[in-house]
Amino acid sequence: MRLIVQKYGGTSVGSPERIRNVARRLLETQREGCKVVAVISAMAGVTDDLIKLARETSPQPAERELDALLATGEQAAIALTAMAVNALGGKAVSLTGAEAGILTDRAHTRAKIANISPKQIHELLADDYIVVVAGFQGQNADGETTTLGRGGSDLTAIALAGALNADACQIFTDVDGVFTCDPRVVSDARKIDEVAYDELLEMAGAGSKVMQSRAVEFAKKFGIEFEVRSSLKPGAGTIAKEETANMEDVVIRGVSLDRNQAKLTVDDVRDEAGIAGRIFSAIAHGNIVVDMIVQSVSKHGTTDISFTIHENDLEAARALLDPIVTEVQAAGLLATKGVAKLSVVGIGMRSHSGVAARLFDCLGKAGINIQLISTSEIKIAVIIDGKDADRAAQLTHQEFGLTRFTSAPSR
Amino acid sequence: MRLIVQKYGGTSVGSPERIRNVARRLLETQREGCKVVAVISAMAGVTDDLIKLARETSPQPAERELDALLATGEQAAIALTAMAVNALGGKAVSLTGAEAGILTDRAHTRAKIANISPKQIHELLADDYIVVVAGFQGQNADGETTTLGRGGSDLTAIALAGALNADACQIFTDVDGVFTCDPRVVSDARKIDEVAYDELLEMAGAGSKVMQSRAVEFAKKFGIEFEVRSSLKPGAGTIAKEETANMEDVVIRGVSLDRNQAKLTVDDVRDEAGIAGRIFSAIAHGNIVVDMIVQSVSKHGTTDISFTIHENDLEAARALLDPIVTEVQAAGLLATKGVAKLSVVGIGMRSHSGVAARLFDCLGKAGINIQLISTSEIKIAVIIDGKDADRAAQLTHQEFGLTRFTSAPSR
Repeated sequence: MRLIVQKYGGTSVGSPERIRNVARRLLETQREGCKVVAVISAMAGVTDDLIKLARETSPQPAERELDALLATGEQAAIALTAMAVNALGGKAVSLTGAEAGILTDRAHTRAKIANISPKQIHELLADDYIVVVAGFQGQNADGETTTLGRGGSDLTAIALAGALNADACQIFTDVDGVFTCDPRVVSDARKIDEVAYDELLEMAGAGSKVMQSRAVEFAKKFGIEFEVRSSLKPGAGTIAKEETANMEDVVIRGVSLDRNQAKLTVDDVRDEAGIAGRIFSAIAHGNIVVDMIVQSVSKHGTTDISFTIHENDLEAARALLDPIVTEVQAAGLLATKGVAKLSVVGIGMRSHSGVAARLFDCLGKAGINIQLISTSEIKIAVIIDGKDADRAAQLTHQEFGLTRFTSAPSR
Repeated sequence: MRLIVQKYGGTSVGSPERIRNVARRLLETQREGCKVVAVISAMAGVTDDLIKLARETSPQPAERELDALLATGEQAAIALTAMAVNALGGKAVSLTGAEAGILTDRAHTRAKIANISPKQIHELLADDYIVVVAGFQGQNADGETTTLGRGGSDLTAIALAGALNADACQIFTDVDGVFTCDPRVVSDARKIDEVAYDELLEMAGAGSKVMQSRAVEFAKKFGIEFEVRSSLKPGAGTIAKEETANMEDVVIRGVSLDRNQAKLTVDDVRDEAGIAGRIFSAIAHGNIVVDMIVQSVSKHGTTDISFTIHENDLEAARALLDPIVTEVQAAGLLATKGVAKLSVVGIGMRSHSGVAARLFDCLGKAGINIQLISTSEIKIAVIIDGKDADRAAQLTHQEFGLTRFTSAPSR
């Protein structure tokens, strides 16, 4: 008998009506002959409301209590989901993270899963129950409720699938799967059938907000396959898995765009140990997320350090950096708003030489100027002017033959 | 060092502002040199919202899941209360019923407390924490969350006070304490300083809605003193305790009114075994709560059976009883709406003879007709016309010298 873990997000359980839809789907899956474990998020909006209440009660809520508070959102949702299954004539039981045997470390609000003891889940499944588990939460060794932080429910589902040795883990979302590019930008973008964990990780870091990196990293670490699929439409989604040999036949898996970026350059700074640390410590101190960092080659003992941030953070970053620029005697701080990051991702680029050249050539012929370049083993990211972003994505998508799922024709 | 259990209801924690007020009071109590355990209800309205969600999701929610759902209301409130204490510079920890060691039987939605293991509470108190416990909930032997039913948070507070051997248990409400009569009816009604459990129980059954009977019964069974006091004003409230010898110096403790009652009489019915059972089974089947039941003495083999219900239930009761009346060949069903029940309660009436006579005489002189009489060892209840209710209460209150807290002058 197949064992399936299905995860539903807050929108999927956003109302009694939607909860009943989830219950129907769980029962259908059971009737197809599967044992079913459901992982459920808090109803849409509930977590935000609880955070608001906490902030109104205390300017800086104790993390232990914030976890105890937030965990109630998922606990209400699982009880309602189990009720809905029962109301349709099925058998369901709700379990909190603690009841499901999810043990975490002590790091409240961002706990890591340490261990899962799924004895109770196995017993309930053996008695034909649909087991409805609260996502996003666990229990530490002191018996305190912990939460897993952003993307926590995906993580719960993937970790449970691993601990239960499930035959499938399905992450239901409001998109049909992972696409070769955002269909709003590239009209012939296609759903990808299979993606390697590493590719999905690079995409997650490049503006494809389907899955949080943390859940994907966990899946990669323990080799847990999962499928991202639509909660609104039937049909297969995208399966994330270990890379296979034939995945390399495709040069690049997808094209991602990150808009509304700002590029900052600390110009002509001495190439000495400690200076980059000074710059990025200041930025981190302001809770500003830095994306690409590029340092050019040193000439005459000086270099340029460039990096990108969200353009909303630009003024804050400037205020933090201006004194540093003076202090380290750099020539100045250059800032450009309205740039975009275009990333091409694919494990195929390891075995296909010339991918970077082909990308640069494609953009160059179209008159699109590349302002920064950063590469990893399976990703090439370039910073371009925001107004060129859509055209660049369309051309790149076409250049690498993504709609056809084959490697591009040789030229 | 004194150990105090304080219970706050849903209105007292109905907003972040009010939660901060509760936190202030907890800290004040601690600064006065006490160890403090707080028992908190769900924020006002939350439980009703959750019940509504449950009904919208399932016409008849499974009780296990209803408990899991409802328990989240108290869990959110305790986390917020602990946060508020922390925000004021104090140390607080929230505990669910399970974490506080409250073990119950398996009766979901109306569980009875089976045992309390307060080890963790003692440890936290020893470390100077204010311990904030979720009211209304516990855990059964299977580790499932249970709820205690109506008045459950009062019960939690009283049971914890017993298990912790607390020096005081304070039930904070929106009234100043227990009164000799409703101050809206009798302007010189006074707060009672001390009341015997039995008196409070009789008052609870007679329209004084300060405390649910269940919590008072528990306190009586285990001899746990508690105080009902105002969360809005400072000052002592009413202490409920075992009766003491000097309590009998007061003839009656209080006068209660229950308005909007209806009186039904099954007239001239054969005085045979099983007939009363038929009548009240039918009424119970309609979920109608019966209050007083009076059967007159049998004459010529027939008798009258009278009882009172809330007048809103009158039509339903009539529909249920009409066929029974025909079936048992009674002369008819007489019904009167708009009657009131006046009760006088006091353990003093055990040792003061003639209390009933004095009450009837007092009402008789005022021309107030008594329609039904029912007595217990420490209560006399009479049914009178609703329009006489206020005047009857005022006269009775005066007759028994309640404002002066002495027995009435002999006449």
